[in-house]
Amino acid sequence: MFRDWPADFHYAPGLQESVVVAMADGFAQARRAPALVNLHSAGGVGHAPGSVFTAWRNQSPLVIVAGQQTRAMLPTDPFLCARSAVDFPEPYVKWSHEPARAQDVPLALSQAIHTALQKPCGPVFLSVPEDDRDALTEPVVPRTVATRFAPDPVALEALACALESAQRPALVVGAAIDQDGAWDDLIALAERLNAVVWHSPMAGRRAFPQSHRLFAGFLPPLRQPLAHRLAGHDVVLVIGAPVFLYHVHSEGEYVAPGTRLFHLTDDAEQAARAPVGSSLFASIGLGVAQLLARVQATQRPAPQIAPRPVVPTGKDPISGEFAMHTLRETFPANAVLVEEAPSHRNALHDHFRVDRSGGFYACASGGLGFALPAAVGVALAQRPRKVVAVVGDGSSLYTIQALWTAARLALPITFVILDNSGYGAVKALGARMGIGTIPGCDVQGVDFVSLARGFGCRASCVQRAEDLAGALGEAHAADGPWLVEVRMNPNADTIY
Amino acid sequence: MFRDWPADFHYAPGLQESVVVAMADGFAQARRAPALVNLHSAGGVGHAPGSVFTAWRNQSPLVIVAGQQTRAMLPTDPFLCARSAVDFPEPYVKWSHEPARAQDVPLALSQAIHTALQKPCGPVFLSVPEDDRDALTEPVVPRTVATRFAPDPVALEALACALESAQRPALVVGAAIDQDGAWDDLIALAERLNAVVWHSPMAGRRAFPQSHRLFAGFLPPLRQPLAHRLAGHDVVLVIGAPVFLYHVHSEGEYVAPGTRLFHLTDDAEQAARAPVGSSLFASIGLGVAQLLARVQATQRPAPQIAPRPVVPTGKDPISGEFAMHTLRETFPANAVLVEEAPSHRNALHDHFRVDRSGGFYACASGGLGFALPAAVGVALAQRPRKVVAVVGDGSSLYTIQALWTAARLALPITFVILDNSGYGAVKALGARMGIGTIPGCDVQGVDFVSLARGFGCRASCVQRAEDLAGALGEAHAADGPWLVEVRMNPNADTIY
Amino acid sequence: MFRDWPADFHYAPGLQESVVVAMADGFAQARRAPALVNLHSAGGVGHAPGSVFTAWRNQSPLVIVAGQQTRAMLPTDPFLCARSAVDFPEPYVKWSHEPARAQDVPLALSQAIHTALQKPCGPVFLSVPEDDRDALTEPVVPRTVATRFAPDPVALEALACALESAQRPALVVGAAIDQDGAWDDLIALAERLNAVVWHSPMAGRRAFPQSHRLFAGFLPPLRQPLAHRLAGHDVVLVIGAPVFLYHVHSEGEYVAPGTRLFHLTDDAEQAARAPVGSSLFASIGLGVAQLLARVQATQRPAPQIAPRPVVPTGKDPISGEFAMHTLRETFPANAVLVEEAPSHRNALHDHFRVDRSGGFYACASGGLGFALPAAVGVALAQRPRKVVAVVGDGSSLYTIQALWTAARLALPITFVILDNSGYGAVKALGARMGIGTIPGCDVQGVDFVSLARGFGCRASCVQRAEDLAGALGEAHAADGPWLVEVRMNPNADTIY
Amino acid sequence: MFRDWPADFHYAPGLQESVVVAMADGFAQARRAPALVNLHSAGGVGHAPGSVFTAWRNQSPLVIVAGQQTRAMLPTDPFLCARSAVDFPEPYVKWSHEPARAQDVPLALSQAIHTALQKPCGPVFLSVPEDDRDALTEPVVPRTVATRFAPDPVALEALACALESAQRPALVVGAAIDQDGAWDDLIALAERLNAVVWHSPMAGRRAFPQSHRLFAGFLPPLRQPLAHRLAGHDVVLVIGAPVFLYHVHSEGEYVAPGTRLFHLTDDAEQAARAPVGSSLFASIGLGVAQLLARVQATQRPAPQIAPRPVVPTGKDPISGEFAMHTLRETFPANAVLVEEAPSHRNALHDHFRVDRSGGFYACASGGLGFALPAAVGVALAQRPRKVVAVVGDGSSLYTIQALWTAARLALPITFVILDNSGYGAVKALGARMGIGTIPGCDVQGVDFVSLARGFGCRASCVQRAEDLAGALGEAHAADGPWLVEVRMNPNADTIY
Repeated sequence: MFRDWPADFHYAPGLQESVVVAMADGFAQARRAPALVNLHSAGGVGHAPGSVFTAWRNQSPLVIVAGQQTRAMLPTDPFLCARSAVDFPEPYVKWSHEPARAQDVPLALSQAIHTALQKPCGPVFLSVPEDDRDALTEPVVPRTVATRFAPDPVALEALACALESAQRPALVVGAAIDQDGAWDDLIALAERLNAVVWHSPMAGRRAFPQSHRLFAGFLPPLRQPLAHRLAGHDVVLVIGAPVFLYHVHSEGEYVAPGTRLFHLTDDAEQAARAPVGSSLFASIGLGVAQLLARVQATQRPAPQIAPRPVVPTGKDPISGEFAMHTLRETFPANAVLVEEAPSHRNALHDHFRVDRSGGFYACASGGLGFALPAAVGVALAQRPRKVVAVVGDGSSLYTIQALWTAARLALPITFVILDNSGYGAVKALGARMGIGTIPGCDVQGVDFVSLARGFGCRASCVQRAEDLAGALGEAHAADGPWLVEVRMNPNADTIY
Repeated sequence: MFRDWPADFHYAPGLQESVVVAMADGFAQARRAPALVNLHSAGGVGHAPGSVFTAWRNQSPLVIVAGQQTRAMLPTDPFLCARSAVDFPEPYVKWSHEPARAQDVPLALSQAIHTALQKPCGPVFLSVPEDDRDALTEPVVPRTVATRFAPDPVALEALACALESAQRPALVVGAAIDQDGAWDDLIALAERLNAVVWHSPMAGRRAFPQSHRLFAGFLPPLRQPLAHRLAGHDVVLVIGAPVFLYHVHSEGEYVAPGTRLFHLTDDAEQAARAPVGSSLFASIGLGVAQLLARVQATQRPAPQIAPRPVVPTGKDPISGEFAMHTLRETFPANAVLVEEAPSHRNALHDHFRVDRSGGFYACASGGLGFALPAAVGVALAQRPRKVVAVVGDGSSLYTIQALWTAARLALPITFVILDNSGYGAVKALGARMGIGTIPGCDVQGVDFVSLARGFGCRASCVQRAEDLAGALGEAHAADGPWLVEVRMNPNADTIY
Repeated sequence: MFRDWPADFHYAPGLQESVVVAMADGFAQARRAPALVNLHSAGGVGHAPGSVFTAWRNQSPLVIVAGQQTRAMLPTDPFLCARSAVDFPEPYVKWSHEPARAQDVPLALSQAIHTALQKPCGPVFLSVPEDDRDALTEPVVPRTVATRFAPDPVALEALACALESAQRPALVVGAAIDQDGAWDDLIALAERLNAVVWHSPMAGRRAFPQSHRLFAGFLPPLRQPLAHRLAGHDVVLVIGAPVFLYHVHSEGEYVAPGTRLFHLTDDAEQAARAPVGSSLFASIGLGVAQLLARVQATQRPAPQIAPRPVVPTGKDPISGEFAMHTLRETFPANAVLVEEAPSHRNALHDHFRVDRSGGFYACASGGLGFALPAAVGVALAQRPRKVVAVVGDGSSLYTIQALWTAARLALPITFVILDNSGYGAVKALGARMGIGTIPGCDVQGVDFVSLARGFGCRASCVQRAEDLAGALGEAHAADGPWLVEVRMNPNADTIY
Repeated sequence: MFRDWPADFHYAPGLQESVVVAMADGFAQARRAPALVNLHSAGGVGHAPGSVFTAWRNQSPLVIVAGQQTRAMLPTDPFLCARSAVDFPEPYVKWSHEPARAQDVPLALSQAIHTALQKPCGPVFLSVPEDDRDALTEPVVPRTVATRFAPDPVALEALACALESAQRPALVVGAAIDQDGAWDDLIALAERLNAVVWHSPMAGRRAFPQSHRLFAGFLPPLRQPLAHRLAGHDVVLVIGAPVFLYHVHSEGEYVAPGTRLFHLTDDAEQAARAPVGSSLFASIGLGVAQLLARVQATQRPAPQIAPRPVVPTGKDPISGEFAMHTLRETFPANAVLVEEAPSHRNALHDHFRVDRSGGFYACASGGLGFALPAAVGVALAQRPRKVVAVVGDGSSLYTIQALWTAARLALPITFVILDNSGYGAVKALGARMGIGTIPGCDVQGVDFVSLARGFGCRASCVQRAEDLAGALGEAHAADGPWLVEVRMNPNADTIY
């Protein structure tokens, strides 16, 4: 592969495959374009599936190419060969393939790219035997494949009528809105309908400005509580999200009996799987635009929205609420937030409003280890824009090696480690289920400043609330990566 | 799972799943017993396959249990659920299963254990939905499954006759000999036959004392050179290894035309796949014992063995040869070596003789990241025996998080990082193929002492040859983990 | 399953699973609605994949439900249990599932139906353990999922402009046009553009009236000859078919250098896979309708079409051409043709014009054994319409058991067996490749009249050309199934 | 494939793939040697899995080679190509492979053969692209792989001691005894131990002479009744069968509390899966021989065996008991019985004693359609020995096409169709579960004599008991295939 390596190819190195795939995931999302990842055969691919799972849930168009041993050696099951190479990354890839001949690799790469880019986007996998790189073949003709498609006009009409005649409509918005560039049209649609906007649970991107007068908050990932939040609405339209994503089981209705539910999705599986409602299948940008073009401005009064949470106090030890508030206060203009702090998600929702498209990325899968390398990928994609990663200590230790790439490439990233010395979200979940002590949830004795320096990053540590703003400011002002370790209250974590 | 957690269960924590699986792999190998690994559903399992691949190649009996979302939620494709849970760890598990009912989990666990322990041993996978933990069920009756089996007496007789009548017989020995406790019988067999002993390529364990007068060296993982080494023998018996394991392709004969090849294996696939020779299927311990009982002492003269390499000099910068030699000189009595330094494997073979069963562990798969966590697992299994891990910088950074577990459990491990600031083996392979510069092979700017301290380990750094022995002695004398970073000559790596 | 069997469920029996699935395939296609197939566990499912493969290629919305052993027995690997039940029908199903709990079966059935109906339609599989039938569960709420979607307006505009400005445009039409009810709009589109219409190769349905002045013929399934047919066109639009389906390999261009190719498809994989051209993704009915609404009537002169083949003579032994011509001459008004006579496909194309939507069904996969049971399914779906199946002797013997169902249900079907005493298409292919004699291609000694009577059908045999019309007329006039065996010239078969 | 077809290759044709695979299954079993089956790609393979499932349960060493489209065409998803070719026959093959290069096909064929022959034997699958047949490659070196292996001597000793010291030992015998040629040693073992011999449920071959004084009968495939039969024994040894094979679920113990169970098996999965007992792993022939060599003759008194059923009367309509009795009375010396008459299995067990090795074959899977083609395969393998197939009407109609091959090859087979005009075993099972009427269970209106003649066989029909012996005698005396349709009492079927 490296023979005659093109001079204009930029090779972004990383220290482990889960790091590399998550870097590419962040990059592809921030660029809204496919990213190519190159991995070693089984030995390398094997470290990646955790991040591939996340990329799949993030609907990130990755083209993952893996080496494979020389074809001639495969009958001997050689060292480092991948057996059943195409099965290894399953089931979290859209397509997995090893061409039957060296000559077919370029066309397979074309199919891989177009497959990754079809809605819903996602990772694809191509296994390429080593000797295929030396084969001569035909050039592939460049071609286009339209990735947008519009809703059924008849179903769209029915939806528009339902929304127009609704008493108290609500929109439930998901990550696909930001993925497909529908942010502005969605605001216009909500305003024209005077409809309340809820954010779908656990979304990897923000779909609506949280400071907007129509924004009502984040739905919880539990069946009964979620239905309860939507109970007052007679018509609900879910856009670019599943119906619905749950985390912890609770029995109950999916929606309250009086609610009519509609669903606009670019994901045929989500449409078929939804337990209730009428689904339309369309790419989100076109779907929202055509709906906006169709509905009339409403005379409906403005909805009532619950008041915002109060500003938290700066007591020690530092609380999640105060950390998120301070992070928002010191946040550089135009910076991007990448988040993976499950213990502090409520605090994030309450105290850190994201108000622009492309301003937020998080892990849609729940698998840990996304945020650190994804921040590197986002920074690479949007250089010289500042990126801020706010990450729990447990999450950060999954892929701490990403700090090295940030340092080597001198990327403008502030890494904020909210260190509660353990897996706080797991402890909180255990407490919710009435379990006293869960073994293995303490992560004590890690010195993040030392780790950061070991990988070549500058770093500082904050223990008192009064020092937090200053430390963040210092990190944001640096022109390369800087890690701020924030010692948090280890016993104050909550979940849902 | 953690409700009513038994007081006598020891839970060994780790910071990432690839770390945890490799820890368990080392533990299971060192104990010659199955180890149970508990992982989170897709999000956690996804980080593990790299180490599962290695455990499979290591033939390590791991029982990997993964959580799964509550059964009642699965139709909604919930957060953190594993879709096609049993496919995810494929193809590198022997058995993968999610029971159809909660009541069947205990019996499935029994089947998992007995399957992992069948020859060739290897990892198995069991997906258990969260709510299954609360179901009442029947107790499983303890039972035994014999894991040993003997060779076909007729084929054994033919083999014994061939060995007795051979002019210049050779044994090629593999990891299964040490796995199955056949070390002493193998020495007796080699001596009775006065046969040369070659070590099979890339084995994860040593099968014969390298100081023994009959030991001829390590076979290279290339077809033609390997056949060349064996060319002088009229009868070759491969025991507990494939016929043969190659890494880099070269055309040529599998064995020289005049050589008769026999193969004693506990792996039916290896038997069916071998391109040449007569295969016997038996567990290695029984196979070697029955062969030993059958063959007569020979009158054949002692074979000629090539002389040992000379002792390397202690020039700066430190060479791999000198590092391995010094490591051997300072090695604590009875300690165990865990190795993953691909750039220095020739030096290891030449200058570090392993002379007892259970004295050596390495990664059989070629996937990186095994040695650091495996050393933790071996130390856990054999406490208070000293364990020494000698690891390249690139390898160590795959799973550097294992240092934290070593520190938390205060395990007696010396971590020796041979730091050549890059992926030396890849560079050497590139040079062998005539490629000038390979991008992404430099790993500069890592401070291992700082990383070790960040995880709670003591550490030191050696730059001059004259300081190496002292630094190693200091580390070996410590009663907890200690990391020694050895700055190596970055341009002196070789391969094959 | 049969406890409390609803009185208004019609159970159509069959003697073997490949027969039953193909019956359901014909039924679902003719009804444009999903059909439910119920199979026994592994023992029964195992006989079905040949027909499932065909249903998948036919894009037929089948919901296949298979029994599975009682959950409690599964750990013992009991008699007739299906292991890896969801893998068995792979890869030719769109979705394969066994619910994790009995309570989830109804919702899974809903998801199965909606998945089968998404474009491109196809079979889905649901494995249901026996004891699940006795569980109580929640009712599933009826819901709708729109299955139509429209093309990207921007890409549609580009396509319309290309067609309008073309000198000699051509349409290549495929089965999806008839599947999606776009027959009439397509005629209007062709006429508005004055564009030549070619039929795509090996399609399972007809997409355009073959007597129409713009119909140019059937494209051959070979790369170079196909490109040659299209070479005179500057713009080609492929609708509802892959780009392109080939049977025998020939090197060469996919299309001639000067041709611009566009592709309107409801199949995202076809879009990504196509080696050349610009693909639009839309359901075919909406796509054609919106294109028709957009393009202007052309001033372009009418294209030149090659003249029709001459009427064949009625010499003995009976030729394929004469058989097809006579079949057309005697064809009952409004009857449906089901075809599987590969040796006589050229004759069919030349001498049997299908001129209305829903008038023709064939096997899109090339797997044998479709037509006999499919004719039964079509007749069931459209009773009392007459169905005529024209089938080769080799094909008919795959699923000859379907005659019994036709007889039991007294369906109005004429089965025409074109008996050339062998696999004529294989012989012709062999001759094309220069192979003298292919063993196993003779099928002599079968008496179809006796077989038909054994299954309860009336039957007759024709040996002379002059008797053919009369025999067909007698069969068509019967009010139940009637088989006509036509003894053909065994050495006159051709292919392409 | 057919270019340069070797003159000494015998090609046995068949009309459908499920027929062909079952023919090969019968052939391979009767020859105790691998059989090669050649199938068309997906279209042909798809009809085979029902019979592959049975061959897998029968542990029959089949090498199934399937064509695949030309490699160069695969990127276009061509007509008749197999996608995911290696997944299609899963999970009922031991190995499934498509070589990465044409040159590797011969070695893969060698691996396929050796894999099929490893214990437990079973089908393997090899997909070979069409153009691979034209490639030049290296010849494969013939080699041997021992397929026998002996039990662990330590475990064998424990088993021998348990048997010697038992008060009332029993042997439970399975098909692997006859597969591995251990029939005579098993008789000697039973006699030396004076142990009762039970036959395991649903076995595809007989393992012990049913006229022997120690033979106690057939165990039922239900948990509680089976345990009840064995309850009086203090030591039970299961040989060459699973522990245990069940068909219908019943709760209860696997064995009575006082019984010690041992298990000698050549199937590692059976060993790991068994819920109770101590398992030894060995090939059955060697295992039985070594056990026989080890145990001492017993002084234990002869066990009490229940008396044989009385001779049935010849009343009309003909009963299963009378049919089986008459079949036994008229059975040609040295003939082989192939059976698939599930409604009459009790009658078979009671009235048709099989007393020699290789004298009986049945379907081990429960999938229908085995016996007719298997009888063809057995007759081919053992020509000119007479073969008698006794088959239910429902079973026979699955693969009735096999009659044609029997006729073409003029094989000496008597086909006895026990025609009860329906799926009697299903009706009986329904009655057992208290279900009144099961739709689709009647198979009326089939005239088997007409079908047989349609395929070229002679045939006769018997309606009265008094005519049965004469009709069977006439058929047995014929020198080619002859079918006897026996009209049975349709309402007298039983099960268990």
